[in-house]
Amino acid sequence: MHVADQLQDTIDRSGSLACVGLDPRVALLPPQLREPSVYDPREAVAAAFLAFNTALIDAIAGHCACVKPQVACYEAYGAAGMRCLEATIAHARERGIPVIVDAKRNDIGSTATHYRQAWLGTAPGLDNSPLPGAGGDWLTINGYLGSDGVTPFLGEQAGQGGVFVLVKTSNPGSAELQGIATAETGTVMEAMAALVDKWGANRLGICGLSDVGAVVGATWPQEARTLRAAMPNTLFLVPGYGAQGGTAADALAGIRSDGRGVIVNSSRGIIAAWQQSDTPDAFADAARAALEAMNADLASAR
Amino acid sequence: MHVADQLQDTIDRSGSLACVGLDPRVALLPPQLREPSVYDPREAVAAAFLAFNTALIDAIAGHCACVKPQVACYEAYGAAGMRCLEATIAHARERGIPVIVDAKRNDIGSTATHYRQAWLGTAPGLDNSPLPGAGGDWLTINGYLGSDGVTPFLGEQAGQGGVFVLVKTSNPGSAELQGIATAETGTVMEAMAALVDKWGANRLGICGLSDVGAVVGATWPQEARTLRAAMPNTLFLVPGYGAQGGTAADALAGIRSDGRGVIVNSSRGIIAAWQQSDTPDAFADAARAALEAMNADLASAR
Repeated sequence: MHVADQLQDTIDRSGSLACVGLDPRVALLPPQLREPSVYDPREAVAAAFLAFNTALIDAIAGHCACVKPQVACYEAYGAAGMRCLEATIAHARERGIPVIVDAKRNDIGSTATHYRQAWLGTAPGLDNSPLPGAGGDWLTINGYLGSDGVTPFLGEQAGQGGVFVLVKTSNPGSAELQGIATAETGTVMEAMAALVDKWGANRLGICGLSDVGAVVGATWPQEARTLRAAMPNTLFLVPGYGAQGGTAADALAGIRSDGRGVIVNSSRGIIAAWQQSDTPDAFADAARAALEAMNADLASAR
Repeated sequence: MHVADQLQDTIDRSGSLACVGLDPRVALLPPQLREPSVYDPREAVAAAFLAFNTALIDAIAGHCACVKPQVACYEAYGAAGMRCLEATIAHARERGIPVIVDAKRNDIGSTATHYRQAWLGTAPGLDNSPLPGAGGDWLTINGYLGSDGVTPFLGEQAGQGGVFVLVKTSNPGSAELQGIATAETGTVMEAMAALVDKWGANRLGICGLSDVGAVVGATWPQEARTLRAAMPNTLFLVPGYGAQGGTAADALAGIRSDGRGVIVNSSRGIIAAWQQSDTPDAFADAARAALEAMNADLASAR
């Protein structure tokens, strides 16, 4: 199935546009998962992250559109973190949740191909037999290098794994480069949007969305409307809801008239919701409740 | 010691401006390292890569400025690849060779901090004690997100690990975004260069170069001269020499009048030099000979 159709299917079944960011950090772990250990210290962190993620995934399955592990959180713990991330991805997929690997990768030609192998495909073994990678459905990428830094990330056929290209990021400093006025296209982000639209052409699923998506921050609703016009068939992955200041209405500014085309990420607001409760033992229940509240908030703004 | 001074020291002692790209791929391994194995197939690839890299590092130590492992090549093999990469970095440092981790990472705030922890720093353990990361000296990064996507990668004090920001990449399609004319600054790459110059200000080593470097492809010598004027104190990491078509003169187009400020990468031309010989068993000797030829080529163009 085309990845965009698979994701739309999960959205339709769950009734949720929420993407839950699985960004474990030691400071976000409930105390019972931070017990001292005689284990190798990086393995101990990875094991705690996996226990955290597994419980979270079990609690949110069926109530979210997808999950988005942030690779940096795992990469900081080397091979142990990588194993934890692969197990996290596998567990989400077993639970029927599509996985966006948030890695913001970028490179050219055969190097970009290796990144695709790592996250969406298979890599050659010593005898050239295909060795499965981490098994993600989507990968975030950075398009600064141009077409030959993007097309190697795309599947041979449309929908065999998808990408989200950074267009307008949620951070305050994003305007420094992305907002520069250009001589012809408006701004740099609009030039990137035009490229995204081009890269995704003829790669649509039945749902009418392409396997080349775009990252468009919730903190820039006006820009989101402009970017929607430039990318009519592009799925927007929207960070910046909640903690970073974007409201539900802001986050949905780029939604299409058919109600499709936007998923909204929340990380800390869901996975660290236990910090606002008196029961850290029930961290997964707190995450589920925070997700339901986010779903209601988004629904009221649609 | 400031990373730029450490690198300048290696350049001065070796007399070489060459950066050797450690980009192992199954197709580049000599036959004796591709023997079938009953080992876990990803571990088998990682073990072969490490045997390859270790012999290469031993052969080139003292004759190059630095090495640059391409993370994608390792990441394609998951945790096994990550362990191989960490061991490769450790071996290079034991041999006194500075290591540029070519990862082109990018993200904002605390997420970018985790990438720094992974490659240049330490990450917190469950008890918040610092756990060493991969131990690189420099990291390539992508500046599309702006200042709040770059400053978290920098050390608290100048020279505690450095970065190379993508400014003008070597690929044919790099002009698509990087070459767009802007209303004020010239082109997007010049806007990025102005930011790099700003980010690196007040972060110079004794050698006069900053810990915020720039990637400037050898395939664009005219642009390199323009970019040198915009970034007078910036170390250029120059890919695209050899295989991608850049000559020694092209690669050195951005060098400063004091003979500093440029290192030139070659990957396949060095590590796969055995493919041009009749003796795959002597792959490390072939790499060393190719490196010496590259050193002579660069010296003649200075």
